[in-house]
Amino acid sequence: MSETVRVAVDAMGGDNAPGEIISGAVLALNERENLEITFVGREEIIRQELAKHPDAPLARCQIHNATEVIEMAESPVNAVKTKKDSSIVQGMMLVRHGEADAFVTAGSSGATLVGGQVLVGRVKGIERAPFAPVLPTQKGPTLLIDCGANVDARPSQLVQWGQMGSIYMENILGIKNPRVALANIGAEEDKGNALVKETMPLMKELDNINFTGSVEARDIPYGGADVVVCDAFTGNMLLKMYEGTAHMLEGEIVNGIKHGGPLALLGGLLVKPALKKTLTKFSAKTYGGAPLLGLTGLIVKAHGNADAVVFSHAVEQCIDWKNADINEKFKEKMHLVDRTKKTASPESAAKQ
Amino acid sequence: MSETVRVAVDAMGGDNAPGEIISGAVLALNERENLEITFVGREEIIRQELAKHPDAPLARCQIHNATEVIEMAESPVNAVKTKKDSSIVQGMMLVRHGEADAFVTAGSSGATLVGGQVLVGRVKGIERAPFAPVLPTQKGPTLLIDCGANVDARPSQLVQWGQMGSIYMENILGIKNPRVALANIGAEEDKGNALVKETMPLMKELDNINFTGSVEARDIPYGGADVVVCDAFTGNMLLKMYEGTAHMLEGEIVNGIKHGGPLALLGGLLVKPALKKTLTKFSAKTYGGAPLLGLTGLIVKAHGNADAVVFSHAVEQCIDWKNADINEKFKEKMHLVDRTKKTASPESAAKQ
Repeated sequence: MSETVRVAVDAMGGDNAPGEIISGAVLALNERENLEITFVGREEIIRQELAKHPDAPLARCQIHNATEVIEMAESPVNAVKTKKDSSIVQGMMLVRHGEADAFVTAGSSGATLVGGQVLVGRVKGIERAPFAPVLPTQKGPTLLIDCGANVDARPSQLVQWGQMGSIYMENILGIKNPRVALANIGAEEDKGNALVKETMPLMKELDNINFTGSVEARDIPYGGADVVVCDAFTGNMLLKMYEGTAHMLEGEIVNGIKHGGPLALLGGLLVKPALKKTLTKFSAKTYGGAPLLGLTGLIVKAHGNADAVVFSHAVEQCIDWKNADINEKFKEKMHLVDRTKKTASPESAAKQ
Repeated sequence: MSETVRVAVDAMGGDNAPGEIISGAVLALNERENLEITFVGREEIIRQELAKHPDAPLARCQIHNATEVIEMAESPVNAVKTKKDSSIVQGMMLVRHGEADAFVTAGSSGATLVGGQVLVGRVKGIERAPFAPVLPTQKGPTLLIDCGANVDARPSQLVQWGQMGSIYMENILGIKNPRVALANIGAEEDKGNALVKETMPLMKELDNINFTGSVEARDIPYGGADVVVCDAFTGNMLLKMYEGTAHMLEGEIVNGIKHGGPLALLGGLLVKPALKKTLTKFSAKTYGGAPLLGLTGLIVKAHGNADAVVFSHAVEQCIDWKNADINEKFKEKMHLVDRTKKTASPESAAKQ
């Protein structure tokens, strides 16, 4: 059996906290024996919720009391600075001090990003830490990197993310020699905005990844690349458009069948299992959370509306990450040069 | 009856030329009495194709012989420079010389863009001409502007596109007081990349549009804005992701039903009409073509794989545009300042 992995869980973060969060964590605990969880948040509330789970392996549960909660609407920089006793800040500090290997939160993305940079810090040589969610595509999982952290990115950062994404997909999702591509508006040499045009030749020079050039947005749902590299503004557009379109169409299809007359209604009942299977395959919820890669400890942002099952995936992901020793692989395979400080100020991190 | 509209049609451009193109033009001619068409391309081929349509109103058809064709893979700048007798260059020249009100092509986007700038020229004061396709959304049509022309755009350009888009949607698609929004990664004040952050306050200052702030990608399929303003790189990501996701899911749903056992198969037959109706509603083909707005004449780029019906929509669109006198409305309502030359060099146009 592999060594024990200690995950701190933000019991207060997300639309469905604390109920679904704690249920999800208990699911993960019962699924994985080598997992220990520290619940971070208001002790009394956590105890009440845990009491609802007689199957919870309490010997592998701890509670770290944190009295404050960072709300979604708060300024991330301010919140991280001032709410020292919030579940996010306290959870991050557990990682910083080596008392947890990972921290999982469904709370504020902004505070997670700022906290990750300021309180946990980057691996030496990593310029910027990207959010890297996994999209379910026709061919299987595709990593979208960066998708939320660095909206005005530089070519050298994209070059690092391509390498980090490749290592992540190979070691966590078991995809051999993953195809790494830049999100672009066409395959021809002269296509792209200034960022893509500058980044393209740098990516081509890399000998440690399988760089396949450009991937157009329309090919991403078909699995046109295993790792899609882009700035976070573009990544957000791609991810949210993917989720939004799938969700909207699902609703429209169900609605169309409901209003298509009695035969369509009967047909709808008959196709329901097949339809559900297909739509579940492409649900944004399939792959738990987005890791903030390149920090000295693992920080995972779960979907804000994560339910217990989704949250349990995000927690279990931490075990694979720890077992694969990803940060060591970054250091070995990326030939990093230390040009950064270990931690950034809240202000500079927020500018990311 | 409104005045006659003269549309030049590229008979040689697109995957399905010349057959579907000429069929589509004939469809439009039979649909709209005040339409005249000049077919541009190889005269002999056009005559052969027209002969297949005994219902074609030949009195309203002309042929303008053009012996060359610009291929999709060619460098747009070179092609426009050297292939003076191509259907795209010749069609554009008809617009330039006032012999046609509009030119519709399903051929090379790049050559259409370069030709539009170089051969037709912009309305005085318009900084850059954007491609503006219409997306079918849950609430109805949404204009995506820019979606292909200007990948590294400036705030002042986005500000113009917001106004142009508003005028277009109000006058061509009949949407009163259209909601104009910037594509963004969140609704909060501090969200966005540098371009969006610079553009936001300028848009807020406009008193001639209904600016509603940010629209997130996930809300676009639901019709979260009537006009979505963005640089062309972002627009391409949004449009292609929308098309790609819808197309991929359609295939997966059909496939899931086919392999879901005999009951699902039977159900599939029963839901087929409702399913088809829903999917057609969101097909990229619903709204013919993307106009290149802000030129002295109308240039419309139809989808490369347009069939006869789609192409006929693109042609008919030109009648509404002409009747609405859009360029005059741009001049009246946008308070334009002439800071541009009438035509650009092929090189500078290609840099857009």
